[in-house]
Amino acid sequence: MLDTDEKTITEAVLRAGTHGSDQRFRTVLDAVVRHLHELVREVSLTESEWAAAIGFLTRTGQLCTPERQEFILLSDVLGVTMLVDAVAHRRSRTATENSVLGPFYRSNRPSFDDGADISAGLPGTPLSVHLTVVDTDGVPVPGAAVDVWHADGDGHYDSDIPGIEGAAMRGLFHTSAEGRASFSTISPAPYPIPDDGPVGALMRASGRSVMRPGHLHVRIGAPGFAPLTTMLFREDDPYLDSDPVFGVKASLLTRYESDGDGETLRHTFVLDRE
Amino acid sequence: MLDTDEKTITEAVLRAGTHGSDQRFRTVLDAVVRHLHELVREVSLTESEWAAAIGFLTRTGQLCTPERQEFILLSDVLGVTMLVDAVAHRRSRTATENSVLGPFYRSNRPSFDDGADISAGLPGTPLSVHLTVVDTDGVPVPGAAVDVWHADGDGHYDSDIPGIEGAAMRGLFHTSAEGRASFSTISPAPYPIPDDGPVGALMRASGRSVMRPGHLHVRIGAPGFAPLTTMLFREDDPYLDSDPVFGVKASLLTRYESDGDGETLRHTFVLDRE
Repeated sequence: MLDTDEKTITEAVLRAGTHGSDQRFRTVLDAVVRHLHELVREVSLTESEWAAAIGFLTRTGQLCTPERQEFILLSDVLGVTMLVDAVAHRRSRTATENSVLGPFYRSNRPSFDDGADISAGLPGTPLSVHLTVVDTDGVPVPGAAVDVWHADGDGHYDSDIPGIEGAAMRGLFHTSAEGRASFSTISPAPYPIPDDGPVGALMRASGRSVMRPGHLHVRIGAPGFAPLTTMLFREDDPYLDSDPVFGVKASLLTRYESDGDGETLRHTFVLDRE
Repeated sequence: MLDTDEKTITEAVLRAGTHGSDQRFRTVLDAVVRHLHELVREVSLTESEWAAAIGFLTRTGQLCTPERQEFILLSDVLGVTMLVDAVAHRRSRTATENSVLGPFYRSNRPSFDDGADISAGLPGTPLSVHLTVVDTDGVPVPGAAVDVWHADGDGHYDSDIPGIEGAAMRGLFHTSAEGRASFSTISPAPYPIPDDGPVGALMRASGRSVMRPGHLHVRIGAPGFAPLTTMLFREDDPYLDSDPVFGVKASLLTRYESDGDGETLRHTFVLDRE
């Protein structure tokens, strides 16, 4: 009989799930149960705190739409997204590090020839970007698919800017025989994560900044190489130390060189072989 | 700078939250972060499993309505609700044990005089209920507010039965000078938890039964005593060993005595002083 107390209930829940057919599911769910129970015992969670947690999770789910995923944002600000990425992508020491994908990637982005302007005429500081893709021996990778997307000088992506038809500040390039891809755009600025929902409330209660450092998203795929999803930051950004999603890594910092009325960014990505 | 890896990211997330003003909030959230991260590392959670978890939590939140709380149901089937209750209500050895409140309690229930029939004429096996409320010395507690509610012989509560106006199988009684309250109703039957949502899918993947043993919900409040929320089960119920919400306790089993065309249930509740 299920006559449990605060010590024995964990074993009872684990025992109840022993008839599941998928061993991996059982392994993961058992770990979820053990950690949840340990958490409740460790902090002596009160009933009103439990009710607050139920309300928080409910509001988080109900805020999700095709355009907004508050649970992913929650995972991001708790460092879980970057941790899962780190566990899933154990890379060689010399390869470029991953970062989070974020919610602004679009698979229906335009394709551009080398040197194109992807700014769609939006105002901002002109930025000239020169990327190189090499393998861990430094040999250029030609024909790599290089996806880039970023926000404008106010921190807005194209989908958030009224009057933009189609895409802006995003596109697909392919590296040249020398492993190079170049384009013109405008410099991305820091911007806040969506903070009008449960995650915003959590950040305020934690006394944490909601500002992401400005960044250029990059995804690179090439046959025979491990795919790379990452982003580049500018080394003088004021928000590097408080990125709410923990996406900043030393290897992803770049210098924005000033050249008169614009800036130039150069970076080399190192891909691991699959 | 936030240059983290799979080992150091946990410390980085904890450090980020040190500016929150509410120490208890920080204690609980820090424990959430530590256990979430430990879980990811322990099972080496994959990106597709993480995405499945995000989808599961999102669907769970989106299924919630004023009438259905899928996150509480999830908490119930993972044993978290009973565990929080056990941690929050550490009772003396002789006092009646708590169980879960469940989703069918209504604060706007009718009040009845002793001996009333609360079945509203619904068909079923007649059940005569005789409850006694005493303190831990066995002294009767007069004037205690005793709330009862239960399902019918098909496992349906009044709100799920078409054609019922107002309440049925629920009501508020007050104990007599001898600590007694009696009423007539129909015998409650086992019924499944709502299993057409994410929690139902989780139960199927776990190979677990969704059938709750039949039960009579009871809430008792009396000045000077700790409030009691519990339920009574019948000792011959076939689902005692697999209650999906882990609410069954040995001290909450009762014998339904057959008396011709009906049944009689007698139980004494023991209240802790506040």
